[in-house]
Amino acid sequence: MTTIEIGKKLVDLCKAGKNAEVIDKMYAPNIVSVEAMAGNPTMPQRMEGIAAVKGKNEWWHKNHEVHKAEVTGPWPNGDKFIVGFKYEVTAKSGPMAGKRFTMEEAALYTVKNDKIVQEEFFYHMGG
Amino acid sequence: MTTIEIGKKLVDLCKAGKNAEVIDKMYAPNIVSVEAMAGNPTMPQRMEGIAAVKGKNEWWHKNHEVHKAEVTGPWPNGDKFIVGFKYEVTAKSGPMAGKRFTMEEAALYTVKNDKIVQEEFFYHMGG
Repeated sequence: MTTIEIGKKLVDLCKAGKNAEVIDKMYAPNIVSVEAMAGNPTMPQRMEGIAAVKGKNEWWHKNHEVHKAEVTGPWPNGDKFIVGFKYEVTAKSGPMAGKRFTMEEAALYTVKNDKIVQEEFFYHMGG
Repeated sequence: MTTIEIGKKLVDLCKAGKNAEVIDKMYAPNIVSVEAMAGNPTMPQRMEGIAAVKGKNEWWHKNHEVHKAEVTGPWPNGDKFIVGFKYEVTAKSGPMAGKRFTMEEAALYTVKNDKIVQEEFFYHMGG
């Protein structure tokens, strides 16, 4: 598969809300996930391995109610592609609990042997 | 300056149509520019040096009439940031001459010592 084909598959699944399926079907076992910022001691900035990434994704969906999701792209270059995400959510826990807010980020994915081997999230928090 | 500050400066200049000023003021002399695709023998996929990048930018603006430009972001992660561009243009030369079309791309910038040392453009042409 070409990078653009893999990117379109990911975008289609995300648009359908099937983010867990992206991880199950499209991610390599040794996937590396890099956040723009460290969360807390149990949520490090860099995670490795499908179990850790699956755990992070489950945590996020358990702790956020998603009202609206917009997915744009993919935009490819070589073995990488970029996807834009815009979520309107209400946090269910933590300091933002009960607050509704918009999250906007860009994700940079790296493909190898038809599998996604790295996801890097680009965003800014706090003004 | 932080990555987000540099990203915001670039976005503000691009929104004001001052793309040439971005190159003059924000780019390192040895800037590396990577397109998603090779153009032609005089427009290679990878260019190095401020003169080549300036030339590419001037060529683009001479050969496209820009009707509308939308710039989104910046979204930072470490020493990199992503910016989204959406242009409505009419080509002035080449196979698309006289045709009006929309170009959408994401750009990934790398910062070092407060200067942009790399720009990588992510896009897909042709369906």
